[in-house]
Amino acid sequence: MEIGMIGLGRMGSNMVQRLLNGGHKVVAYDRDDAAVSASAAGGAAAAASLADAVSRLTPPRGVWVMLPAGAITDAVISELADLLDAGDAIIDGGNANYKDTMRRGAALAERGIHLLDAGTSGGVWGLAEGYSLMVGGDADAYRRLEPIFQTLAPAPDRGLCHVGPTGAGHFTKMVHNGVEYALMQAYAEGFELLQARQDDFGLDLPAIARTWQHGSVVRSWLLDLTVRALEADPDLESLAAYVEDSGEGRWTVNESVELAVPTPAITAALYQRFRSRQEEPFGARLLAALRNQFGGHAVRESGGEARP
Amino acid sequence: MEIGMIGLGRMGSNMVQRLLNGGHKVVAYDRDDAAVSASAAGGAAAAASLADAVSRLTPPRGVWVMLPAGAITDAVISELADLLDAGDAIIDGGNANYKDTMRRGAALAERGIHLLDAGTSGGVWGLAEGYSLMVGGDADAYRRLEPIFQTLAPAPDRGLCHVGPTGAGHFTKMVHNGVEYALMQAYAEGFELLQARQDDFGLDLPAIARTWQHGSVVRSWLLDLTVRALEADPDLESLAAYVEDSGEGRWTVNESVELAVPTPAITAALYQRFRSRQEEPFGARLLAALRNQFGGHAVRESGGEARP
Repeated sequence: MEIGMIGLGRMGSNMVQRLLNGGHKVVAYDRDDAAVSASAAGGAAAAASLADAVSRLTPPRGVWVMLPAGAITDAVISELADLLDAGDAIIDGGNANYKDTMRRGAALAERGIHLLDAGTSGGVWGLAEGYSLMVGGDADAYRRLEPIFQTLAPAPDRGLCHVGPTGAGHFTKMVHNGVEYALMQAYAEGFELLQARQDDFGLDLPAIARTWQHGSVVRSWLLDLTVRALEADPDLESLAAYVEDSGEGRWTVNESVELAVPTPAITAALYQRFRSRQEEPFGARLLAALRNQFGGHAVRESGGEARP
Repeated sequence: MEIGMIGLGRMGSNMVQRLLNGGHKVVAYDRDDAAVSASAAGGAAAAASLADAVSRLTPPRGVWVMLPAGAITDAVISELADLLDAGDAIIDGGNANYKDTMRRGAALAERGIHLLDAGTSGGVWGLAEGYSLMVGGDADAYRRLEPIFQTLAPAPDRGLCHVGPTGAGHFTKMVHNGVEYALMQAYAEGFELLQARQDDFGLDLPAIARTWQHGSVVRSWLLDLTVRALEADPDLESLAAYVEDSGEGRWTVNESVELAVPTPAITAALYQRFRSRQEEPFGARLLAALRNQFGGHAVRESGGEARP
């Protein structure tokens, strides 16, 4: 069927390719002309603007927005709202906060426009392996666009689900990413312990990771990625111990607070990322100061020798 | 080849079967006669005692001990030490503490007996799918017994690894299980958040878990088991919120303390298990008491109404 794709970054452009491979007609737009040209070279219809993209689609339209969460998604959805007609549907495949999505959905619903929030997992592997899709929104609009979801999913009957009304998709994806944070932290802690005894036992970390891939309780796709990373660089010497976060982990912890549901592992995973980005954090300085105050314990001066 | 199997519980008896299926000769012993008879019915040679088991094996012998960690394993290995000859090998497939294993290995080495510590993951699924094996100990003894490990593993070249000297296998398995604790906790927290909003969004938890199995970053074998559990009982109403632990999680946290390597997610996972087993913990009572002391906040009396 026919779909518009707004936002041709790494995720969006891969999804255009997967949709084209699946026989769909894709109208592609990005404010970066080069990205549009690249998708057009792959077989998409190039659009020169949001309005042009909308005009190239037949009502009831489906327009997939694949942009970073926040202001840019908000702006594009607002602009689309003025261009689309009642019965059209916007699919937000990004990682918007589910409460923003509910707000946007309610505003669009007043114009008869559907907002489907398609929580999308799979990253750069999605082009080849398909994306896991957790979709919220109007059930009829979901059914109409199901061929699109079925092509993006790993298989037409696997890895896709209409989870509930608008907001439910991004809610589910938020929790999914919170789980992902803690899963990653679990492997990070385990391999750090192995690494700490690596010399004592002559451990081969990539070989251990490969062993765990088969028959073990901890086998997973993230473990597969761990194997790739360790095989490429067993000591991870090429990387700084600096880890970004991109929103969903924070929202998951906020949600835990709102619901009073304890999520200590997810929270610890998020906080470890924060800690990874701190140099000389004030809290650790205060601890050192207090140990010195009450016990006269030695402190290390600012700018002093590196820690042993 | 030929192998003795001491301990015919769920793990041991399944391993006997897998070894027999692989064409090996297995001498089986357990202090429970019925367990021995069951393995004998499957094709194992029944032994009436540890001494009988040893006498039925041809030197250099291999004797696999598959027993709960602790006193029973210690007792059996001590008894075997008096029955075996130099050049023989004991394989401890249980979850012994790696420091105990190093101590036992040193004692056995004085008699020329090898101790291979085979960290074994796979649980009840191992019979069909094979076990992931992390083996410590003498390299030559490992090589001699490799056909046994290759049959127990998912495939001769997958899911098995000689990780280092005696102790390295159980060390690696300990960390593996610590990782497992945190992975399980990650899913537990995520599904608890989903469940808390289940009614708001009409979420179908088994369907969401199935969606995550395909194409998603959080797909894993533990997620596959989550799907099974949720499909059988979506609200998990048949289970009490009571979770045991069996040693390796505690040892992993102890190891973190010894190495001063922070493992907040693994530690949180272990503590959540402790918390699950507490009724009316003293710490929570103290918190309530203090809130009352400084702020006059209402408290709930012991034995009072159930919490809302």
